[in-house]
Amino acid sequence: MESRKLNANLELLESQIEAAVDAALAEDLGLGDVTTRALLPPDLTGKGVVLAKEAGVLCGLPVAACVFRNVDSTVSFKPALSDGSRVRPGDVCATVEGTLASILMAERVALNFLQRLSGVATATAGYVAEVTGTKATVVDTRKTTPGLRLLEKYAVRVGGGRNHRFHLGDGVLIKDNHLAALRAEGKGIKEAVALARHAAPHTLKIETEVEDIAEAKEALEAGADVILLDNMPTEEMRRVVEVVAGRALLEASGGITLDNVRAVAQTGVDLISIGALTHSVKALDISLEIS
Amino acid sequence: MESRKLNANLELLESQIEAAVDAALAEDLGLGDVTTRALLPPDLTGKGVVLAKEAGVLCGLPVAACVFRNVDSTVSFKPALSDGSRVRPGDVCATVEGTLASILMAERVALNFLQRLSGVATATAGYVAEVTGTKATVVDTRKTTPGLRLLEKYAVRVGGGRNHRFHLGDGVLIKDNHLAALRAEGKGIKEAVALARHAAPHTLKIETEVEDIAEAKEALEAGADVILLDNMPTEEMRRVVEVVAGRALLEASGGITLDNVRAVAQTGVDLISIGALTHSVKALDISLEIS
Amino acid sequence: MESRKLNANLELLESQIEAAVDAALAEDLGLGDVTTRALLPPDLTGKGVVLAKEAGVLCGLPVAACVFRNVDSTVSFKPALSDGSRVRPGDVCATVEGTLASILMAERVALNFLQRLSGVATATAGYVAEVTGTKATVVDTRKTTPGLRLLEKYAVRVGGGRNHRFHLGDGVLIKDNHLAALRAEGKGIKEAVALARHAAPHTLKIETEVEDIAEAKEALEAGADVILLDNMPTEEMRRVVEVVAGRALLEASGGITLDNVRAVAQTGVDLISIGALTHSVKALDISLEIS
Amino acid sequence: MESRKLNANLELLESQIEAAVDAALAEDLGLGDVTTRALLPPDLTGKGVVLAKEAGVLCGLPVAACVFRNVDSTVSFKPALSDGSRVRPGDVCATVEGTLASILMAERVALNFLQRLSGVATATAGYVAEVTGTKATVVDTRKTTPGLRLLEKYAVRVGGGRNHRFHLGDGVLIKDNHLAALRAEGKGIKEAVALARHAAPHTLKIETEVEDIAEAKEALEAGADVILLDNMPTEEMRRVVEVVAGRALLEASGGITLDNVRAVAQTGVDLISIGALTHSVKALDISLEIS
Amino acid sequence: MESRKLNANLELLESQIEAAVDAALAEDLGLGDVTTRALLPPDLTGKGVVLAKEAGVLCGLPVAACVFRNVDSTVSFKPALSDGSRVRPGDVCATVEGTLASILMAERVALNFLQRLSGVATATAGYVAEVTGTKATVVDTRKTTPGLRLLEKYAVRVGGGRNHRFHLGDGVLIKDNHLAALRAEGKGIKEAVALARHAAPHTLKIETEVEDIAEAKEALEAGADVILLDNMPTEEMRRVVEVVAGRALLEASGGITLDNVRAVAQTGVDLISIGALTHSVKALDISLEIS
Amino acid sequence: MESRKLNANLELLESQIEAAVDAALAEDLGLGDVTTRALLPPDLTGKGVVLAKEAGVLCGLPVAACVFRNVDSTVSFKPALSDGSRVRPGDVCATVEGTLASILMAERVALNFLQRLSGVATATAGYVAEVTGTKATVVDTRKTTPGLRLLEKYAVRVGGGRNHRFHLGDGVLIKDNHLAALRAEGKGIKEAVALARHAAPHTLKIETEVEDIAEAKEALEAGADVILLDNMPTEEMRRVVEVVAGRALLEASGGITLDNVRAVAQTGVDLISIGALTHSVKALDISLEIS
Repeated sequence: MESRKLNANLELLESQIEAAVDAALAEDLGLGDVTTRALLPPDLTGKGVVLAKEAGVLCGLPVAACVFRNVDSTVSFKPALSDGSRVRPGDVCATVEGTLASILMAERVALNFLQRLSGVATATAGYVAEVTGTKATVVDTRKTTPGLRLLEKYAVRVGGGRNHRFHLGDGVLIKDNHLAALRAEGKGIKEAVALARHAAPHTLKIETEVEDIAEAKEALEAGADVILLDNMPTEEMRRVVEVVAGRALLEASGGITLDNVRAVAQTGVDLISIGALTHSVKALDISLEIS
Repeated sequence: MESRKLNANLELLESQIEAAVDAALAEDLGLGDVTTRALLPPDLTGKGVVLAKEAGVLCGLPVAACVFRNVDSTVSFKPALSDGSRVRPGDVCATVEGTLASILMAERVALNFLQRLSGVATATAGYVAEVTGTKATVVDTRKTTPGLRLLEKYAVRVGGGRNHRFHLGDGVLIKDNHLAALRAEGKGIKEAVALARHAAPHTLKIETEVEDIAEAKEALEAGADVILLDNMPTEEMRRVVEVVAGRALLEASGGITLDNVRAVAQTGVDLISIGALTHSVKALDISLEIS
Repeated sequence: MESRKLNANLELLESQIEAAVDAALAEDLGLGDVTTRALLPPDLTGKGVVLAKEAGVLCGLPVAACVFRNVDSTVSFKPALSDGSRVRPGDVCATVEGTLASILMAERVALNFLQRLSGVATATAGYVAEVTGTKATVVDTRKTTPGLRLLEKYAVRVGGGRNHRFHLGDGVLIKDNHLAALRAEGKGIKEAVALARHAAPHTLKIETEVEDIAEAKEALEAGADVILLDNMPTEEMRRVVEVVAGRALLEASGGITLDNVRAVAQTGVDLISIGALTHSVKALDISLEIS
Repeated sequence: MESRKLNANLELLESQIEAAVDAALAEDLGLGDVTTRALLPPDLTGKGVVLAKEAGVLCGLPVAACVFRNVDSTVSFKPALSDGSRVRPGDVCATVEGTLASILMAERVALNFLQRLSGVATATAGYVAEVTGTKATVVDTRKTTPGLRLLEKYAVRVGGGRNHRFHLGDGVLIKDNHLAALRAEGKGIKEAVALARHAAPHTLKIETEVEDIAEAKEALEAGADVILLDNMPTEEMRRVVEVVAGRALLEASGGITLDNVRAVAQTGVDLISIGALTHSVKALDISLEIS
Repeated sequence: MESRKLNANLELLESQIEAAVDAALAEDLGLGDVTTRALLPPDLTGKGVVLAKEAGVLCGLPVAACVFRNVDSTVSFKPALSDGSRVRPGDVCATVEGTLASILMAERVALNFLQRLSGVATATAGYVAEVTGTKATVVDTRKTTPGLRLLEKYAVRVGGGRNHRFHLGDGVLIKDNHLAALRAEGKGIKEAVALARHAAPHTLKIETEVEDIAEAKEALEAGADVILLDNMPTEEMRRVVEVVAGRALLEASGGITLDNVRAVAQTGVDLISIGALTHSVKALDISLEIS
Repeated sequence: MESRKLNANLELLESQIEAAVDAALAEDLGLGDVTTRALLPPDLTGKGVVLAKEAGVLCGLPVAACVFRNVDSTVSFKPALSDGSRVRPGDVCATVEGTLASILMAERVALNFLQRLSGVATATAGYVAEVTGTKATVVDTRKTTPGLRLLEKYAVRVGGGRNHRFHLGDGVLIKDNHLAALRAEGKGIKEAVALARHAAPHTLKIETEVEDIAEAKEALEAGADVILLDNMPTEEMRRVVEVVAGRALLEASGGITLDNVRAVAQTGVDLISIGALTHSVKALDISLEIS
């Protein structure tokens, strides 16, 4: 079947796209499109174009393609650009051709995915541009939309960012609340790192959150592979960078905005994680026009 | 079972909440939380508070409750406020008590729902406040996050808005693309409304999109129950309001922002639909702190 | 993939058919067809015909096609007629050709769908014929077979009827039990219609059930868009028609049979809803014969 | 959890009921009950009774109970009778008490199950009564409603009938089409029975369809455990009964009606299978009234 | 679609294979293959061979084919042998060709199925070889891997065995625990067989477990169709065979090993059931090598 | 609900157990247990014990508990031991009490889980015992039973082993086939490690497979965090241990048996991964006896 192949960029399996698309179509189509059924003769065919209405980074074409295909496999969806393309208002992203009834039934769901994923990619690209020339990498968080994590993390990659943990099983990250919980038992960062080293799969690095330079030192001594500097002033970050001196990866997190991301990157941290990439997405304006 | 009842406000069935929660937990927990498993003894219990970190309208407490319950039904989640409560930074939204391992495994998913839904409710409340004193009602659109339509539409109600169509089956809305498609057959608004009246279930009103006052008149004569004024200048809207004179409901749509929504409302339209309520959500900052 | 397209008549999405078909095949095939496995060599091919054994309106060919395809996509199923065709005993509805083992494993499920849906279409067509020449439209109800609502409502359309609500979300229908519940609060039809107008999506009409002419007047004054006359004598219906005089749609319901449907239609009501179309279906006799 | 136990009569697992109920509720509730949400305050409680409106055999109370429980577990559903009880018009089958909004949202789905299953049980009981005093047992077929086989076969048992195969894996039944397919290979009943004996699990009897007394003899000689007499005149059946003389079970099938079932039973056959028990169900009239 | 056809050997429906494969892929791929994504360019194509590393009976090629197809339908998987083929170390079982990234993502799951099913088939073939020349048939049990029963029972057939019950609904087997439960009511084998005869579908034989020759006689008199000799010494089995003299099928069960199976078969029993065929599988060593 | 809590040992979420249990029950119960339904009165209650029949490490009690609870929540299942307990023949593992029909319907599925998981735990404990006193840790692989990975990896932990990757997303493991694929592009271990470092989430270590000491050195220089020694002679392993000198973790893999595992451990490697722990499980003999 045509629909079961890896995308050219290897980033998503079609089966994973299909699951999200089918859920969205079920939600939107419910028991049918009464308007289209009433208005359009089933044999009426035509064309439409997917148009960018504002500037940004396009993302989600394979998802949109899947939406049209799952509504009606005889509709042809031809991307004119690729995921990752920079678009300007008026750019044609793709063309669709086939039964108009099918095209109109698929339109909203296809756009909902395209607009949201392009919004994530565009925001990511904005942060990535800001840190150009520094050694810092922009990464996402687990603050994703429930149900869309995989797609949103793909959009972060398309926007030029890298991914942090996908879920609680593919990374050890000792957070403030873990430490608060351990404190009741008289344990601190040192014991936490040791416990994690002992019990977690050996394929995972140990990352721990710290709040100040003292804790950062403690984490380093405990043997943490990655140290997350939580809401730390940039000056203090700079000092942590000096102290750690490459013996662990350093990740800045908390309160990062477009305004301060460059200053944070210039402290020399390795990674900057930004929840807003996925928790506060502004959709990119994209529309479909029947021609 | 406790979990299977209607919420006090009748808005959501627990089974519908459970479906979204289970999908999100599956996505986030994957094959287990390696950090928590490594660090916390299973019998360690404690307490946490869910804290608002910025001002807004709280939404999603029953969803957060479901997250904790589905991870561990022995964890007690006690709301301190209700959905719809206005919060300020530092307000305690809820307390959780029980096995700390369970609380930490549920934390992120619970917050992801709370932050997003509170973001929708807060944005809606902002628009609703702007139109106070006019006859206009703020309504949402189908531009929702794939997979979360039901919850986001609930958040719109919690924020004081009303819901437009839930899906393509519960309202007839003849859009520009339907009309473009019909044009090839020599048909216009008049024929479209007649076709819809003939074939759609009699329980549904007929709504049609128009682009100018001439089309609005045509729609009115065709017997449309609701007329959607798409991206129309406010002056022209005002004239449509006069011409229609209550014989159809009027809905303004397209390009509505907090800056112009009051001007739009003052034209006398009945409804103002705003895609950004759900397609461009800024999460409300809420956190969980183990005490 | 071939299977993912809209049917020529735009009525059903293949994905919706597939869901029902897969459930039925799972139920019937269980862990395999021990008889066919034991008896038939896997490379034995042949032909069969789907034959009408009694007169009626054929319905369900796309569903039957899906059954054969999902058991074995190399089986060719060729409809000889279309959904909506009137059949007489002996008419060939379709031919199937391919691996006989596959055909026999699919036979019962395909016929179960065809017989039931043709039964619904045939019954509907009987009622529609009775009201010819009147202004009344035959509509269905929510008294459908659990799990088959979409298909049965399609069969009603194939039989010449129209659909009432698909589910509780796409129409406001204030029933006797709602009114009984409100009565405890001192509210009646007037308040009920006002509440519905205020809170339900503006895309939906407000329909209310009434038991006599006095309530019908109350509903009209309350602004109901549709008034359902529940088990009302035809004479009283006639008077309601006069009083309402086109200011609301009138729907007759309750106790409608083939014997009295014409008399009901002649009262001048707009709609006649009949639960028996779907709750008491007599299967149309259809069989498959290997030739 | 209360809901996970075997029914008193051991016939159905709650988990099997739940699956059917959840599917039906999803179909009927869709994205919510707009009418109830608009009209009823969430804290309004009350009572209702489930009333028989015509005479028959009641069936489906555990399913109806599950519907109310899954909508709102705080609603109390108390059966006043049991599955298998004979009801007359006006009999109270059960009472429900609790939040009225919940009761009204569950009503239609609960009644759809109750009416259909009671219809099956009532029809079965009618046939069983007709054959009283003969040795014949009334059995069902695989001509069940897609998706409801388990429940409908339960209703047959409640009505006093017995079950034939549940699916293609729990019985060997060599039908006319199998024989037609084998004929092309020069094989007949004898070879078919031998093939089945050789390859099917040894836990299953071998049943074969025959069209006349000659074939019945052939089947007997081939060692069939059960012989299905398809559409055979009663006189011929009688002769087959004599010839077989208890060496195989005899099942009459095809064209059995309430008018001829007693005559068929009096031929001395062991089993009479009747597709109409499940393929042409007349719903029993049952309603819910808020008091 | 290509994937929906019966296998040449009629044993498995593709849809049943797909369900197991999709579950296994979801489990193994999770949110993506980070190694392959990082290393391999998406357009790099190549070839691999599936190689037997030890001697045995090959089983599972259609399942492996499905794994590759569901990861990437453009990968070509060509079996070089068939299910049931005897392999020796170094034998090429199949070749795969296409995108290397896809092949590597599918490799482990495909091998997990192939190795396990070939293990079952190989073990079965071992027992079948031992009983050559006797009248005994080797059959499996319900002691299968949770979730893989259908595939494992297929592997037993591929290995030359036959299948016992698939599940609790397709065979009556009165076990020691049933008898222990009935004893409290003063009932024994005789009553148990009578109860089963009365209530179970007539398509099923009645099998009962017995512990010694006395019980075997009781079972025979009660009319059992099959008698299961549980953990009986071979000498006693031999006497049961004589006493029963073909009037019921005899099944030996319990403690059967490769060492004693021939002795058991030589007692003259009809069936020998062996739990170890599926509950203690030694995977056959098979690997995939990129060439 | 009782069933939704973390197990005391924090290892498994009930929801994950439930999924596996429900699938297994569906497979085994099918459309009902005809034997039990026919034989046992629904109100007959009694007791049973779960007995070990051979020595080993018990594992799966929470899964068995879930099986009984999901068949009938009124059955009481009381563990007498815990997961991880060493059992000897005759040890009572748990007692069950309640409706006998329910107990018998649940028996086989409960035992299938218990026997298999105890088999995995017992095998693991055997290997762990062999390496006592060395620094080596016994770990599992992805060679698990399709559909049971989570449970089998839990059983490995219960047996005293540790887990390797859960799936392809939570560890970077560059295998021989990845290297073979890269070779076509002129890339080797060095480039592979660099590519992985660049693109994989920073939370993951980089592990690479090597075949000899030369490759091991190359991997070390490339900066691999873990080096997998594939099928390497123990003497060569020893030299690799010396060369690497703690600068990377070393994992031995391939051809490990109970006979050679101690020799491998004594080379000084950190980890020994053994596919047979899960791909070739010998079920531990456990039974249920009604008393």
